[in-house]
Amino acid sequence: MDFPITKIKGGVGAAKGFLLSAISCGIKNPASERLDLALLFSETKCVSAGAFTTNKVKAAPVRVSQSHLRKGSLRAVIVNSGNANACTGLRGIQDATAMCEETAKSLGLKRTEVGVCSTGVIGLPMPMARITPNIPKLAEELAAKKGNDFARAIITSDTHEKEVAISFDIGEHRVRIGGCVKGAGMISPSMATMLCFITTDANLSQDCLQRAVLESVEESFNRITIDGDMSTNDTVIVLANGASGMNTARRNGSACGQFREALKWVMLELAKAVVRDGERVTKFVTVNVKGARTHLDAKKVAEAVCKSALVKSSWNGGDPNWGRIIHAVGYSRARIREELIDIFIGGKAACLGGLQAETPMEQLREAVSAPEFTIDIDLNQGEAAYTMYSSDLSPEYVDFNRSEYAYWKQARKDGLV
Amino acid sequence: MDFPITKIKGGVGAAKGFLLSAISCGIKNPASERLDLALLFSETKCVSAGAFTTNKVKAAPVRVSQSHLRKGSLRAVIVNSGNANACTGLRGIQDATAMCEETAKSLGLKRTEVGVCSTGVIGLPMPMARITPNIPKLAEELAAKKGNDFARAIITSDTHEKEVAISFDIGEHRVRIGGCVKGAGMISPSMATMLCFITTDANLSQDCLQRAVLESVEESFNRITIDGDMSTNDTVIVLANGASGMNTARRNGSACGQFREALKWVMLELAKAVVRDGERVTKFVTVNVKGARTHLDAKKVAEAVCKSALVKSSWNGGDPNWGRIIHAVGYSRARIREELIDIFIGGKAACLGGLQAETPMEQLREAVSAPEFTIDIDLNQGEAAYTMYSSDLSPEYVDFNRSEYAYWKQARKDGLV
Repeated sequence: MDFPITKIKGGVGAAKGFLLSAISCGIKNPASERLDLALLFSETKCVSAGAFTTNKVKAAPVRVSQSHLRKGSLRAVIVNSGNANACTGLRGIQDATAMCEETAKSLGLKRTEVGVCSTGVIGLPMPMARITPNIPKLAEELAAKKGNDFARAIITSDTHEKEVAISFDIGEHRVRIGGCVKGAGMISPSMATMLCFITTDANLSQDCLQRAVLESVEESFNRITIDGDMSTNDTVIVLANGASGMNTARRNGSACGQFREALKWVMLELAKAVVRDGERVTKFVTVNVKGARTHLDAKKVAEAVCKSALVKSSWNGGDPNWGRIIHAVGYSRARIREELIDIFIGGKAACLGGLQAETPMEQLREAVSAPEFTIDIDLNQGEAAYTMYSSDLSPEYVDFNRSEYAYWKQARKDGLV
Repeated sequence: MDFPITKIKGGVGAAKGFLLSAISCGIKNPASERLDLALLFSETKCVSAGAFTTNKVKAAPVRVSQSHLRKGSLRAVIVNSGNANACTGLRGIQDATAMCEETAKSLGLKRTEVGVCSTGVIGLPMPMARITPNIPKLAEELAAKKGNDFARAIITSDTHEKEVAISFDIGEHRVRIGGCVKGAGMISPSMATMLCFITTDANLSQDCLQRAVLESVEESFNRITIDGDMSTNDTVIVLANGASGMNTARRNGSACGQFREALKWVMLELAKAVVRDGERVTKFVTVNVKGARTHLDAKKVAEAVCKSALVKSSWNGGDPNWGRIIHAVGYSRARIREELIDIFIGGKAACLGGLQAETPMEQLREAVSAPEFTIDIDLNQGEAAYTMYSSDLSPEYVDFNRSEYAYWKQARKDGLV
């Protein structure tokens, strides 16, 4: 970035004019006090934009939020954790709509000004009896507080809340962007959907925000993978209320360009935080591919490497196994020539021209034993490049994901199934 | 099949006129007596056909065997385990060629009549000093023995040798097909390449055998997945020497059709054996997709389900998690409609019309707790179907694949790197 930004406190509550609240209503677990219902509200009208899962099996709240966004701008978002409201048919749509309806009523908004997100187990009906009565309470408790509670209310298998906020100047106006994310990767869609909420007091035209969101998602959340699974619920929602007082930034203007850069930075920070908090993850790995003939070829190579169970297992073991990396490059369907491929681990040559490099194995082993390291793959065929962020795959990940049966038993107890 | 087949003993050595030998020469481990070099030889001229990995990073023996097959028919195959001779550059090609050359010399054949296969670690030069001197010995020891030793010499991380042989009648002639396979899946390419050798005393034209091999591979080895990784070395080689005395079967004749059916059966048995012996696998799962609009759509759905780390983790845990299955269907890129999807686990309805079915969860849990079960997915959109065979993903698999570093240390000790 060619302008200074400053990290500030407050996460999704850092921008001016946004109010938050979060409560526990027993969706995650009736016996616990964990926060599981949260509300985000802008005191004034907003422009808004969203990006959603491309899974063809879409959760009801995704369908409802998409529909509301098509009709205009959102001013509030209601979010629950503990139940994904996915594969719940007509009843799911009715429940998601009812959540928006109740929120709109409590806030004096139109229903279509409210977005809704859910994350948790797939296929169980929503425990609406616990949710609906709590929405007016959420609305009453709205305050210009810091985002921490909100960020904690939306998490599931995450080990901690993940948030970031920055301020920077556009012209003479101080602007803030803050956000939070949940998701221990896209890895565990039925328990760990990726949800991201970002607010800003920048003053933006609708098309400026839309372009900024799409470009930023492409370079952040679309670049991470933990296990290659894609959720039914993944959602990014951004609200911009203009409270900073700046003039409206238009799509092709320099102010919008500056905002885009800043938004990308925020989303990339949040996306990396998701990988670092991936379920039972012990490594954060940046995979840079360059020298590809096309952008798509570079992307195919990065994805194949980042998704290979064998490569990820070797990262878990601290094994500098370039053989597994090159084999994934080979089946990526990108146009490659084996004898041109260079692979660097932690900046040290592991493979040059498709053959083992002379770097002592101990040095490579040291590089791959660090909690964060970089793999550089040069295909030496062209100018295109692509970067992805990935994690290792641990025995503990598989163990963690062996069974959600306990959730179903609880649902049975609750009379939901 | 509309004709009877009989299982017989002898594996890849069951057909008339084939000789085998296998020895230990310290490629796997200089300190152990494990068999690791094996030879297969037909006493008379053969027709032959092969199928090879589509990975663009191809091991040297794959390139050499493909080249020899293009030049004519094979009559012998030399195989080693312990080193894949992959990513070994020009030296790898020279070593693979030298293995064929030495074998040809010992057997009085042309070099191009010999195929070569290697399996083991990627990226290490071949320990030729241990291999070359042992080839004449292998040739001397050739005998019409049963296939067991050969099958054992080619395995790496497999827990046992895998072989099958059948006899059946074509017209008035008794014909035998026998084969063996190694590979604990395509899962672990750098240690567990899939190699398959099949011999038959059927008398076939080259184009009959070629068609039979391609069709059979498509319906067997291309239908299995353990972790979705594809090896640099995967190879299937089939030799037919006509020793049964039958008349030559031509590509479009009924005798060739009968042979194709029988070969498919043999390959499918061997392919399933690979999945059952997958590294740290505890479940064998047949995934049947039907009601797809096209064959490709059905295949995409089957592959997405069979490769999903989350689905496979749930199988490991005995969790009848249809939510994870439908989410994989959703991201498969096949044309689907969520509200039409039915999913059956062990024959019992888990999801009907995209919603949870009424089958008691205990019954589904029981089905998915069995060591072998079937998942039926009906997209209810058309007539196309596809079947795949998959396994669970276990914490022990990841643990097993965390590091091959010990192999590199041994190679260092041997002065190879």
